[in-house]
Amino acid sequence: MKRGHTVSKKLLKNVAVYRNRVIEEGRNIEITDDRITAFPTDIADVTGYAEIIDGKGMLATPGFVNTHNHIAMTVFRSYADDMRLMDWLENKIWPAEAKLDGRTVYAQTLLGIAEMLRCGTTSFADMYFFMDNVAEAVRDSGIRACLSRGLTGITPNAAEALAENRDFFMDWHNSCNGRITVMFGPHAPYTCPEDYLRKVVETARSVGAEIHMHLCETKGEVENIRRQYGKSPIAWANDAGVFDCGCLAAHCVWVDEADIDIMAAKKVRVAHNPGSNLKLASGIAPLGRMLAKGITVSLGTDGASSNNNLDILEEMHLAALIHKADTLDPTAIPAERAVRMLTEDGARALGYTDIGKLKEGYKADITLIDRSGLHWYPRNDTLSLLAYAANSMDVDTVLVDGNILMKHKEFVTLDIERIKADAEYTKNRLFSQL
Amino acid sequence: MKRGHTVSKKLLKNVAVYRNRVIEEGRNIEITDDRITAFPTDIADVTGYAEIIDGKGMLATPGFVNTHNHIAMTVFRSYADDMRLMDWLENKIWPAEAKLDGRTVYAQTLLGIAEMLRCGTTSFADMYFFMDNVAEAVRDSGIRACLSRGLTGITPNAAEALAENRDFFMDWHNSCNGRITVMFGPHAPYTCPEDYLRKVVETARSVGAEIHMHLCETKGEVENIRRQYGKSPIAWANDAGVFDCGCLAAHCVWVDEADIDIMAAKKVRVAHNPGSNLKLASGIAPLGRMLAKGITVSLGTDGASSNNNLDILEEMHLAALIHKADTLDPTAIPAERAVRMLTEDGARALGYTDIGKLKEGYKADITLIDRSGLHWYPRNDTLSLLAYAANSMDVDTVLVDGNILMKHKEFVTLDIERIKADAEYTKNRLFSQL
Repeated sequence: MKRGHTVSKKLLKNVAVYRNRVIEEGRNIEITDDRITAFPTDIADVTGYAEIIDGKGMLATPGFVNTHNHIAMTVFRSYADDMRLMDWLENKIWPAEAKLDGRTVYAQTLLGIAEMLRCGTTSFADMYFFMDNVAEAVRDSGIRACLSRGLTGITPNAAEALAENRDFFMDWHNSCNGRITVMFGPHAPYTCPEDYLRKVVETARSVGAEIHMHLCETKGEVENIRRQYGKSPIAWANDAGVFDCGCLAAHCVWVDEADIDIMAAKKVRVAHNPGSNLKLASGIAPLGRMLAKGITVSLGTDGASSNNNLDILEEMHLAALIHKADTLDPTAIPAERAVRMLTEDGARALGYTDIGKLKEGYKADITLIDRSGLHWYPRNDTLSLLAYAANSMDVDTVLVDGNILMKHKEFVTLDIERIKADAEYTKNRLFSQL
Repeated sequence: MKRGHTVSKKLLKNVAVYRNRVIEEGRNIEITDDRITAFPTDIADVTGYAEIIDGKGMLATPGFVNTHNHIAMTVFRSYADDMRLMDWLENKIWPAEAKLDGRTVYAQTLLGIAEMLRCGTTSFADMYFFMDNVAEAVRDSGIRACLSRGLTGITPNAAEALAENRDFFMDWHNSCNGRITVMFGPHAPYTCPEDYLRKVVETARSVGAEIHMHLCETKGEVENIRRQYGKSPIAWANDAGVFDCGCLAAHCVWVDEADIDIMAAKKVRVAHNPGSNLKLASGIAPLGRMLAKGITVSLGTDGASSNNNLDILEEMHLAALIHKADTLDPTAIPAERAVRMLTEDGARALGYTDIGKLKEGYKADITLIDRSGLHWYPRNDTLSLLAYAANSMDVDTVLVDGNILMKHKEFVTLDIERIKADAEYTKNRLFSQL
């Protein structure tokens, strides 16, 4: 608490809470400034609260965490689907990305943030460019984010991009009351030659930053890197020092036992993107084997151009389903594990130490879920209903850092019609240049 | 039109329509009684319409079709998850099913129907028991359904159940202005010995009924039937005459090329249930190979106890995603194919000849989809947005047989709070007996 600051207390009353991995009905949550401070049982005297939200019938969970995104790619949502990867990239995405500017990235990022908040997401990891504009949208919207500048060593601006990521770290890391953190974003093994990757690692280490990187997304990537370096992308990244910085690794679809052992030893955190991996035909990550070795696995949507929404609850649902069929084991990724990946493990993946649980002293990033929908009846098991039956449109209220950003399905701080119009305007402007 | 009946005309104006496999913006749909009668371009004179719905910004599609369900199993939604199949059946589902009665089945069916309507579903196929009660709920709700009595030859009441299915057919087939049709429902190869199955076929043939049956759901089923009869479940069912009646085959996960050839030759229609197949760890059906042979493939949710919702739009999304990863081909099940499975091919699977398209003379089973959600922006391709980004809660208005059952997300004819309360009451009553 800053000196001279007036303490703001809020109360979420009469909610079920997901806490200690079970559901407790009929609780109250007290929030003081940006933190959860109590679960009071006596709320007869409510004079001290600036705001009280009656959550009768609702379920409170830690805010959902989306650990891999290229958020401004909302501009390409449903622009090009059902195509082979290189055809899609070379003929559609790359030519269009060349026309992006900061104004467009800001508008599209704000659209993506609004969509994520609507679905109960309170923090996300992003890797893209025009990152100052992305950070401004995060700042203005009130959401929490872990941002990295996408770095490729094979483009002419490789050195400049690395300097940008460093500046971006110095300017924004731990800003906005800690809502924004920054990582370094070497894109992938196939876009970062080893000497460049080592420069990225060195720069990240010099400022104490972690690394967000795509690893082992496709079978072809692994084959090519093995051919080029004589080792797997995981072994190669490890040898280059990536994991010593602390690493959020996106995808990890094609990892073998030796890779998994390295990842476990180096505490690599995985962003699993089932929707994107399915849609791009990348494959199905061996989640069970990674979890068995104690690796933190979280959930990401990837960009809207390969999903095509930013609905992290849907990703949880996919994760809870596909690994059962992939391993022919109906007990794989049970409901509680899926919900934990969505919340607690997501927060851990982004390096947060006081986020991801409903717990005294933790940041008040909270999602309230309306259980009045028909698909919530009859009521046999709330946790199972959340994992298998819920719909992101059930999300009713969202708090980030103690601030109410959505209340009873209405945005409190964002002008949604303007955001939609601006997204449409900047999209049309971009495509008119193609 | 019946004699003395007053013609009722309705107009859905200013909608985008999915017609001839593309999206056309800015159309109007005229409905006369239970049928689509025109797409008028001049709507200056609207005096003849009993009701006009302004669908500005919305997308009209043929009503969604859910081709495999055990609808009253909503009572077991999230009652028992993350279990092995036989453990789940023997220790949870079968003991609980033994406590079902007609009153409970009616209440739970009405809940499931309401949930399906909310998600844009206008017709469904069901296989369960207490089917008179299911038919009454269909009659009372206004939805369309193709119903069958689940028949198992290994239970003491096998003969009685078959007689029941026959009576059920005589009582309800083509009733309620054709909204209810009836099939025979031999459950599965592992519950129907061959002599019993032949009796079912004979009875179905004697009244001209088609057959709805589970086939090749699990690897174990195929192995056991091959061991027992020396042929695949498909070959075995074919030899027993099942396909000569006309057959809706649920699942078909473990079918080989020889099976697919038989299915194609006999015009078997498949109900693909991706959510249930994933959740129960049954596997992933070879959709591409079935479609390549011209087999009609449609979408089902299966019962809510193995899904755990009745959201057919989510099944379409799953179908559009999982086959890409399963075959490592990003062009598998493209958007338009997925939408067709949800509508036109679903209707064909249930044996309807004038349902499943927005076309003059077809039944007015229509779903209006609100495109104002954030995940519909920016607007690059509506068909792709429907397949990959849409959410069932976008469904705004639903008509079945020309009647408006949901209008702007409010139910017109059903008392939803009463339905939810009754579902909860009958669930509690059932479990109190265990």
